[in-house]
Amino acid sequence: MDNCLWGTMTFVEIVVLAGGVGGARFLTGLREVAPPASVTAVVNTGDDVTMHGLRICPDLDTVVYTLGGGIDPERGWGRAGESWTVKEELAAYGAEPTWFGLGDRDLATHLVRTRMLDAGYPLSDVTAALAARWQPGVTVLPMSDQRVETHVVVDEPGSGRRSAIHFQEWWVRHRAEPQPHAFVQVGAEQARPAPGVVEALARADAVVLAPSNPVVSIGTILGVPGLRDALRATPGRVVGVSPVVDGGVVRGMADRCLPVLGVEVSAEGVGRHYGARSDGGLLDAWLVHTGDPAQVPGVDVRAVPLLMSSPEATAAMARAALDAAGV
Amino acid sequence: MDNCLWGTMTFVEIVVLAGGVGGARFLTGLREVAPPASVTAVVNTGDDVTMHGLRICPDLDTVVYTLGGGIDPERGWGRAGESWTVKEELAAYGAEPTWFGLGDRDLATHLVRTRMLDAGYPLSDVTAALAARWQPGVTVLPMSDQRVETHVVVDEPGSGRRSAIHFQEWWVRHRAEPQPHAFVQVGAEQARPAPGVVEALARADAVVLAPSNPVVSIGTILGVPGLRDALRATPGRVVGVSPVVDGGVVRGMADRCLPVLGVEVSAEGVGRHYGARSDGGLLDAWLVHTGDPAQVPGVDVRAVPLLMSSPEATAAMARAALDAAGV
Repeated sequence: MDNCLWGTMTFVEIVVLAGGVGGARFLTGLREVAPPASVTAVVNTGDDVTMHGLRICPDLDTVVYTLGGGIDPERGWGRAGESWTVKEELAAYGAEPTWFGLGDRDLATHLVRTRMLDAGYPLSDVTAALAARWQPGVTVLPMSDQRVETHVVVDEPGSGRRSAIHFQEWWVRHRAEPQPHAFVQVGAEQARPAPGVVEALARADAVVLAPSNPVVSIGTILGVPGLRDALRATPGRVVGVSPVVDGGVVRGMADRCLPVLGVEVSAEGVGRHYGARSDGGLLDAWLVHTGDPAQVPGVDVRAVPLLMSSPEATAAMARAALDAAGV
Repeated sequence: MDNCLWGTMTFVEIVVLAGGVGGARFLTGLREVAPPASVTAVVNTGDDVTMHGLRICPDLDTVVYTLGGGIDPERGWGRAGESWTVKEELAAYGAEPTWFGLGDRDLATHLVRTRMLDAGYPLSDVTAALAARWQPGVTVLPMSDQRVETHVVVDEPGSGRRSAIHFQEWWVRHRAEPQPHAFVQVGAEQARPAPGVVEALARADAVVLAPSNPVVSIGTILGVPGLRDALRATPGRVVGVSPVVDGGVVRGMADRCLPVLGVEVSAEGVGRHYGARSDGGLLDAWLVHTGDPAQVPGVDVRAVPLLMSSPEATAAMARAALDAAGV
């Protein structure tokens, strides 16, 4: 925390579009270099799924647990000190699915969430209630209160027929092995940005696209009707952070997703996919990893270290994003 | 197991009306002395409750866990080797109630049950599905597929106004301390005996009222419309086993319940409360503990050891009940 720096900053409002692990870690860095209470995270909920009757929001939980100090730092998802008793017992009953990592501590979060949703609270209110325990230090909003679930069109093993399976089934159960042919946002047509999302973008001094999956995290957020337009209309500068480093993804399965959209798995490829704001795209600036070549016409491309290998490195990366945004 | 005895027995069908711990233990004894697959347990569901969105059936679970070898033998309820992670996490979120013993292993049962109920399966089907794992060796039926929940009319602390609280709140949260003025079976008017209950009574060679609470266990079962009539019409002999031994209850809070109905807390008092079948009541025979005085007009009262202090003692007690039933 650099209070001297903050003393010289005017109060700024920063919006971050974020997925799970990469977005969460970026936010920890941003929290270190930005004034308190100035950051709003708009989080992907396309990975959300209902299992064993429980509503599970992996990216929201990863963001809140990470910022609240409850995350398992090794796995990057779920709770530290986790146990798996309920999962084992469910399997003993033959209750499907058995392939999803449902920890005991984590499960309490899903129980509280499910109960509140069943009682009629919107997901944004539920998220705020859960965050009250974790005190993430930033405002965490779901991209939408409506259900939008990413499905992946794959060839069924055996028959070869194409069918759409839930993103979690593709990613967790099948380890992203079946060739994806398309990603479908089930429910997106009926979705609206969650309360506060459009408002935050409308007054933002800077917007950051976190180094999250450009297809199934950032892409899903941008697929909520009205959200992309609100982003393009923001008064702040829009800075993207490349999730592709040294030609590969640090974590996750963006390398399996980008080709489906015809996007090259490179910092330049993703930058061009987002596109220049001046040319109908999203970006004013684009951060790529030191040494990664990238030309994105109309965009201020900056090369800085993009590996979130330590709190200091992560904070420096966030500082570079704010610099590129001019705040 | 006494196969020689079974070899001389014609196949008999036995129905047991049972609550939680006492009923479950009695059933373990009965299973030892009765032919396999001949016992149907009709279990109280008046203690059932929904907490944290989970449907919890304490007596059904106690019976199935006990017969299936999963019970915690010290507590008498819940799972052996239990952990309490989810409960602690729920409390950390401030999710009420925090006073109910919701174990991690146990919770998986509630999750499976809740999911099946939400999918539209009746409780009797759900109970059979859960029992498929535990193989209790007897047929376990809920008294009803409809919700019947026992509420206790008490004076509110402070105001002194009378209000009805859920049985679990009275028993677990308040340790049965508030003076009960009445027990109310919420939902009983709309309830029917679960599929199989009336049929089992109609062909039973013997019916046993287990040494369970005569008010909030056996009484609740008998409060399901049609069930008492089916019991009175059974072709088998009806044998009751006193839950009052040496003038006190072995376990539970029957001594807090019986006076509300004007029933003396004694083996004789409970026997007279059930009454002689020949006189509009329920009993053909009544087992009391050795040395307990009991006169119940029109009923064959037998004194035998009624302490379920060991598997052998419990089996002998069950054998005495079958003897009194003439099977």
